[in-house]
Amino acid sequence: MNAAPSIQKLLDELERLPGVGPKSAQRIAYYILNTDSSQALRLADAIHEVKEQVCFCQICFNYAEGDACDICSSAARDQGQICVVSEPKDIAPIERTGVFEGVYHVLHGALSPMDGIGPDELKIAELLRRLSSQEVTEVIIATNPNVEGEATAAYLARLIRPLGVRVTRPASGLPVGGDLEYADEVTLGRAMEGRLEI
Amino acid sequence: MNAAPSIQKLLDELERLPGVGPKSAQRIAYYILNTDSSQALRLADAIHEVKEQVCFCQICFNYAEGDACDICSSAARDQGQICVVSEPKDIAPIERTGVFEGVYHVLHGALSPMDGIGPDELKIAELLRRLSSQEVTEVIIATNPNVEGEATAAYLARLIRPLGVRVTRPASGLPVGGDLEYADEVTLGRAMEGRLEI
Repeated sequence: MNAAPSIQKLLDELERLPGVGPKSAQRIAYYILNTDSSQALRLADAIHEVKEQVCFCQICFNYAEGDACDICSSAARDQGQICVVSEPKDIAPIERTGVFEGVYHVLHGALSPMDGIGPDELKIAELLRRLSSQEVTEVIIATNPNVEGEATAAYLARLIRPLGVRVTRPASGLPVGGDLEYADEVTLGRAMEGRLEI
Repeated sequence: MNAAPSIQKLLDELERLPGVGPKSAQRIAYYILNTDSSQALRLADAIHEVKEQVCFCQICFNYAEGDACDICSSAARDQGQICVVSEPKDIAPIERTGVFEGVYHVLHGALSPMDGIGPDELKIAELLRRLSSQEVTEVIIATNPNVEGEATAAYLARLIRPLGVRVTRPASGLPVGGDLEYADEVTLGRAMEGRLEI
């Protein structure tokens, strides 16, 4: 686009963002150019602030400002129920359901021998330490329902069950509001197997 | 999402960007959190830099660093052909065609009496001043082919034609690679009217 060097630099940086292609980068760059300085710089400042202030919760390894995240330090949460997720971003969708009142543990990945990710690359030792140092009644393994996630869940279940802790996994089945006709056979098979009395 | 305050602030700022909804904002925020600091801060710095260094070209009112933009100050461009566009962002698509070797003039809007935008709100006086101070053989009015753009083009043509300058407008017609069947009737009508000898 024959852009001035500083505009080109901004475009390059914007295009690195996930889901932002050349067209969106250009739209965002024009927005930043057009908008008043104070507003545009608020975004720059927010990036600085987040990189300075956010670290990992020393208990669950979610993102946090300070030693413990809001969830781990909340008196309203049941410390006896731990929901294990692969990534910090998996916490938000579970929180939005509003049905889980326990705490989390973020593994920061899933077992994937092909990519060289074994148990030592994940926060598994830290999870076992939590289980031995506090009263935990249930571990819900909410890793993704894909090959790596299932393998990780099976591995963790084998480790945790001998400790006398209940190990569960969110149900697979038909999406609510979905259509039986359009369900893939694996999902529908799981839904049939997991059928409940009504 | 029960986010730490600095993460929430980043999400808020990201959601202000055009084309970035809550989901994309979250994806981008997690990317910024995950990526190493130097890379994330390069984006923040690029925003700062662009707001500090970019102003308007004093000749054509495109974005520029310094008094004149790259196009106006290029010896390779024909200063006798001026392509008039509504916004700086309209220059990039024309440049990409590679067929135009003249210079530009950015109006910063289009006539729209409903929105209170008359000739005085646009860089029209500045365009007329350019026409009187330098040898210009053709003005191509490349405002958008919508109501405001057409009105602006008609208004400019009436002003400029008496100066003995050729006034043109990019052709309307069928998109190359398009399908006659799917063309809207106004576009197809324009294409028929503007038919060329082959």
